[in-house]
Amino acid sequence: MKKYLVDPTQKITLDHWNPNDNGGIKNGKKMTRPLFAELNQELERLQELLYAQSKHKVLIVLQATDTGGKDGTIRHVFDGVNPQGVRVASFKQPTKAELAHDFLWRAHQQAPGNGEIVIFNRSHYEDVLVVRVHNLVPRNQWQKRYEHINAFEKMLADEGTTILKFFLHVDADQQKERLQERLDRPEKNWKFSKSDLNERAYWSDYQKAFEEMLSKTSQSWAPWYVIPANRKWYRNLLISKIIVEKLQRLEMAFPDPEPGLEGLVIT
Amino acid sequence: MKKYLVDPTQKITLDHWNPNDNGGIKNGKKMTRPLFAELNQELERLQELLYAQSKHKVLIVLQATDTGGKDGTIRHVFDGVNPQGVRVASFKQPTKAELAHDFLWRAHQQAPGNGEIVIFNRSHYEDVLVVRVHNLVPRNQWQKRYEHINAFEKMLADEGTTILKFFLHVDADQQKERLQERLDRPEKNWKFSKSDLNERAYWSDYQKAFEEMLSKTSQSWAPWYVIPANRKWYRNLLISKIIVEKLQRLEMAFPDPEPGLEGLVIT
Repeated sequence: MKKYLVDPTQKITLDHWNPNDNGGIKNGKKMTRPLFAELNQELERLQELLYAQSKHKVLIVLQATDTGGKDGTIRHVFDGVNPQGVRVASFKQPTKAELAHDFLWRAHQQAPGNGEIVIFNRSHYEDVLVVRVHNLVPRNQWQKRYEHINAFEKMLADEGTTILKFFLHVDADQQKERLQERLDRPEKNWKFSKSDLNERAYWSDYQKAFEEMLSKTSQSWAPWYVIPANRKWYRNLLISKIIVEKLQRLEMAFPDPEPGLEGLVIT
Repeated sequence: MKKYLVDPTQKITLDHWNPNDNGGIKNGKKMTRPLFAELNQELERLQELLYAQSKHKVLIVLQATDTGGKDGTIRHVFDGVNPQGVRVASFKQPTKAELAHDFLWRAHQQAPGNGEIVIFNRSHYEDVLVVRVHNLVPRNQWQKRYEHINAFEKMLADEGTTILKFFLHVDADQQKERLQERLDRPEKNWKFSKSDLNERAYWSDYQKAFEEMLSKTSQSWAPWYVIPANRKWYRNLLISKIIVEKLQRLEMAFPDPEPGLEGLVIT
């Protein structure tokens, strides 16, 4: 998985990763189905442990361009995982109250507690992405936010939060295809908005903003992974594998039962 | 006011400040009444400007030992100031949900928005005070919190928050007197709790924790002031003066009226 990790010490460019990467697996969607099912089962098991032990906090951040596959990732990777311990926080256009506060205010409120997995569907990173691309705050303000984000995530980590961040990497052709599909298939129409086309016109500005975000905020305590995401099955497989391996390394255990339960028979 | 400011570059000890300090003003409570009234009026004016302009955020942090005078400070300094733009956030024993999150979670939720003055009656600093004195989390965890607090407040400041922090400095004799008063006067009984006596036994541990807090977290963007607080009138006077002078330096103005109002007559 190391090849998808953004080295915290390097300035990166996105052309380093191929959005079409399929790991060299032929007929991959079909071939990896059993492996993906196994990872999904393991994630279910780990999530239950996490919830029962109520010691660790887990934060998963998803960022991507429009149509990058954030919603699909959540649906497939967390398919069947008990929603009681998993919460999705979606960061859409900020409310008036959110805009009146510092940029981390709304994100921090949604941070996970002990035993919880929280998935940020978009996140505080929008404040160095859309905000930057559309000049919503002055440059000297958003420029400082990389440092503030690093400090914020370091604090979360020091306070017991495991953080994983995924950038879903699709190319402009793939986006074109997916936007067209949203127009062509009636059951996908609801996902299409004319503003998506406006955003698409800023493609290269967004790529630049993504590159700076990845270069400046991948840290040992909160690493970014660039996930090739033109192929949905490969995207899901990689993300499942990275999450599962990370959770396994927490070496969790069920809490000790109350003393005196041994041999107890319910009458 | 400079003599009460904690120099951000220095390690301080509290014996540098005399809790009995009265500024050399004889019969001070009476003599300074007109000045205090003037400051109070000016604070009212500034708060209304702040609210109308809705551009700046103001955070005032009060920390002290028990009976240090936090409640009295709020009552007197903000006497008559419109509560619509002033909010007091009191940080008592954390709830279960608060304990399940990182230590800054509950404080950040209460941070001010544009146009707002928020007073923290106790604060995130409890997490390097009571938490430290009673070993509620391991040393290597609370030791990191100074750095996290500095980064958090820097972020608030960069996002438009003016921060002032006041440590109310009373001595052990004064505390004794005030605790006794809470026992002796029926209308003050409700403020007395036996646990106050337990805390009093940790006096020197708390003083040490205060000193480290002041030494490590006074910053140009979020300075600490050590306020001699044995004399309540002097405490109130100093704090009023520091807040008023800080708000004056924001050079606030009412927002421009809508165009076309000139000469408009309501019929």
